Amino acid sequence: MLMTDIIAKKRDGGELSAEEIEFFIRGVTDQSIPDYQTAALLMAIVWRGMNRRETLDLTLAMMNSGDTLDLSSITGVKADKHSTGGVGDKTSLALLPMVAAQGVRMAKMSGRGLGHTGGTLDKLESFPGFSSALTHEQFLSQVERVGFAIAGQTADLDPADKKLYALRDVTGTVQSIPLIVSSIMSKKLAAGADVIVLDVKTGSGAFMKTEADALELAREMVEVGRLAGRKTVACITDMDQPLGNAVGNALEVREALALLKGEYHGELEELCLTLGSCILTGAGAAKDEAEARAKLERGIADGSALEKFAEFIEAQGGDRRAVYDGALLPDAPVKYEAKSEAGGYVQHIDAEGVGLVSMHLGGGRETAESGIDLAVGLVLHKKRGDFVAPGESLATIHARSLESAVSAAELLRRAYTIGSDRPNDVPFVKAIIRAED
Amino acid sequence: MLMTDIIAKKRDGGELSAEEIEFFIRGVTDQSIPDYQTAALLMAIVWRGMNRRETLDLTLAMMNSGDTLDLSSITGVKADKHSTGGVGDKTSLALLPMVAAQGVRMAKMSGRGLGHTGGTLDKLESFPGFSSALTHEQFLSQVERVGFAIAGQTADLDPADKKLYALRDVTGTVQSIPLIVSSIMSKKLAAGADVIVLDVKTGSGAFMKTEADALELAREMVEVGRLAGRKTVACITDMDQPLGNAVGNALEVREALALLKGEYHGELEELCLTLGSCILTGAGAAKDEAEARAKLERGIADGSALEKFAEFIEAQGGDRRAVYDGALLPDAPVKYEAKSEAGGYVQHIDAEGVGLVSMHLGGGRETAESGIDLAVGLVLHKKRGDFVAPGESLATIHARSLESAVSAAELLRRAYTIGSDRPNDVPFVKAIIRAED
Repeated sequence: MLMTDIIAKKRDGGELSAEEIEFFIRGVTDQSIPDYQTAALLMAIVWRGMNRRETLDLTLAMMNSGDTLDLSSITGVKADKHSTGGVGDKTSLALLPMVAAQGVRMAKMSGRGLGHTGGTLDKLESFPGFSSALTHEQFLSQVERVGFAIAGQTADLDPADKKLYALRDVTGTVQSIPLIVSSIMSKKLAAGADVIVLDVKTGSGAFMKTEADALELAREMVEVGRLAGRKTVACITDMDQPLGNAVGNALEVREALALLKGEYHGELEELCLTLGSCILTGAGAAKDEAEARAKLERGIADGSALEKFAEFIEAQGGDRRAVYDGALLPDAPVKYEAKSEAGGYVQHIDAEGVGLVSMHLGGGRETAESGIDLAVGLVLHKKRGDFVAPGESLATIHARSLESAVSAAELLRRAYTIGSDRPNDVPFVKAIIRAED
Repeated sequence: MLMTDIIAKKRDGGELSAEEIEFFIRGVTDQSIPDYQTAALLMAIVWRGMNRRETLDLTLAMMNSGDTLDLSSITGVKADKHSTGGVGDKTSLALLPMVAAQGVRMAKMSGRGLGHTGGTLDKLESFPGFSSALTHEQFLSQVERVGFAIAGQTADLDPADKKLYALRDVTGTVQSIPLIVSSIMSKKLAAGADVIVLDVKTGSGAFMKTEADALELAREMVEVGRLAGRKTVACITDMDQPLGNAVGNALEVREALALLKGEYHGELEELCLTLGSCILTGAGAAKDEAEARAKLERGIADGSALEKFAEFIEAQGGDRRAVYDGALLPDAPVKYEAKSEAGGYVQHIDAEGVGLVSMHLGGGRETAESGIDLAVGLVLHKKRGDFVAPGESLATIHARSLESAVSAAELLRRAYTIGSDRPNDVPFVKAIIRAED
């Protein structure tokens, strides 16, 4: 088999066979195929697309390019969750204890990532002593015992995706449904869960800018998951403005804790109840969505979700007292109100612009080696549709210095669009996509 | 400027600016752009194409990536010729002396190439002592003195094309009009001639399989040549069967000599008269095609074209006696008649199949290091439309051994399609494309 023939076939709009796709992924993994041929094929895939059979075969070949996790030693149905990402997305921090408190176990591998804030692992390091470096055995035994674990990658999962993703990033081949689907789903399948819930963001702050694109991506992922034998559900949710109010590592932990304590009500709660219901019903732990939501809400009301989170923090070496006492979490020395100059209704908040404020304050990571400041960030007081008077605070900036706070406030003001008309409400959860059968 | 932005722009169907194209070609030439990014852009160009302005800018950027030849020290209008190539193409060997005998000078750089036979330089080495290794000064002075020279590349012409061509070959990005146009025309422009005549082959044995594709390629090349300030004409000619009768290095030399001696009449003569007329009229050495053809025919009849060829062979160190005495040219020990099993009319001769026979006999080069047998090859006795009786010879095989001749004869028979109906005649010269203005 020749890589040049495979490239030419896709270039001419042909359908690649499972053998051709496996040859390609094997060559990417063992580096026998040079990057320039891979890049040419990736662009041909962006051009010609892939049908569902090809996308599934690509996903399975990538999944099998490295280790796959065997979760069979853990009792019951195991669930996993993935988000396509956005600004202020601290969902996992609250969702996992909420679900685990209802008896469905979640085994989550997470990353640090580059971006406006750190990844989930960075955020969790707000708890003094917390470690994500679990061995494979520690990871499995904690999921069994505590109900969930969040660890850095413990095995050589999906090496083909690492190589392809790095190449896509520098060859203009990121935006392609089959390439996105295979990248996400190959990792989720390799991670071994029975139930997979996908949070597909849409809007100006999301990877998928339009709802149509988000729907197409969600449908393909759900079908590929089904064809691979996993229960897969996708929720299309709003990322036209930041999620919740807090952006920044420890600030997002505080917001997740507020939700678990029943003190936060808003779209983040709605998102956790929606995703959590999909998991509980998918895992057979609730007969329908109403029962699932009631269970999840009860877990907040009776403190069991919060206690589950404390157990988890303690199991991974963190100080469980910080779950109940916010004074033990990182706190920035400067708090500064970013006041609005204009008055009117908030028409739009540019999520990426808000992310850049966090980045500016030191809360994000520009390269894999960058340090990260867990304490800094911002808490929005005004979101889309809110009325703001001139001089009223849009957000509290948490900064290392007054100087950086002042410039952050200026950046933040630019992220807001304020006008005289109240914008129409838009649904936060736009659709729930289940397998077609 | 970022290469990723340039890739994304073309991927999304945008038009690249001259600055972006120059940045790309500069990066290809100095290797600051990695091959995988170049490969991605090449595939995006195959996908989205380029308009004429972009194609011109790409051609000029490639032309300027290395040295360009200054032919201004040579008297009069200088001409050059390029063929898109095919089986049995020995046109340059006859055309250049025919044109030079009429006072129009031709300065031709040539290559060895990989393929069914050697390149023009290999074929010329059939003359004992002949050398294509001329210094830049020798090359210019011979064109001035003799009227033409054929040399290996004397300068670092168009290094960007060398890199791009090598990459296109292994990334499925050869077939793209703007990439083909820029590859051919950048080299022709760098080689410095005032008049450029292009022989664009079409048919099953050509790079451009359909006449429509050949026409599009020809039109784009002619317009790019015009916009770059050169007189450019393209002839679309048939390559649905091999050109002429001889395939093989010394055998092709013999056929070219037969033409120059007035002993050969057929499509090769028609091609040389057509291309030669375009050159003479383009250079102002004839007022119209009729006068040009008459001059070229007279040059054959009076022996001046043949004598010009002998002068050229001598100037480059070869034995001029071999021009007049074929016994001094390489000759294979075995001659074997490839007899037809079927009877009827020749419907089609697969040119690539005939080329493989030459390759099988040792007349071609598989890698740049391969040796080449100048004596072997074949001379076709039957071409499309000819009647052949069972047992009649299709061709004489010139081989190193009887064994290789027998298997070559079998391969050759497979290249022929023989049937009961006489196929319709098709014009050999299909169109002549001049600039639109």
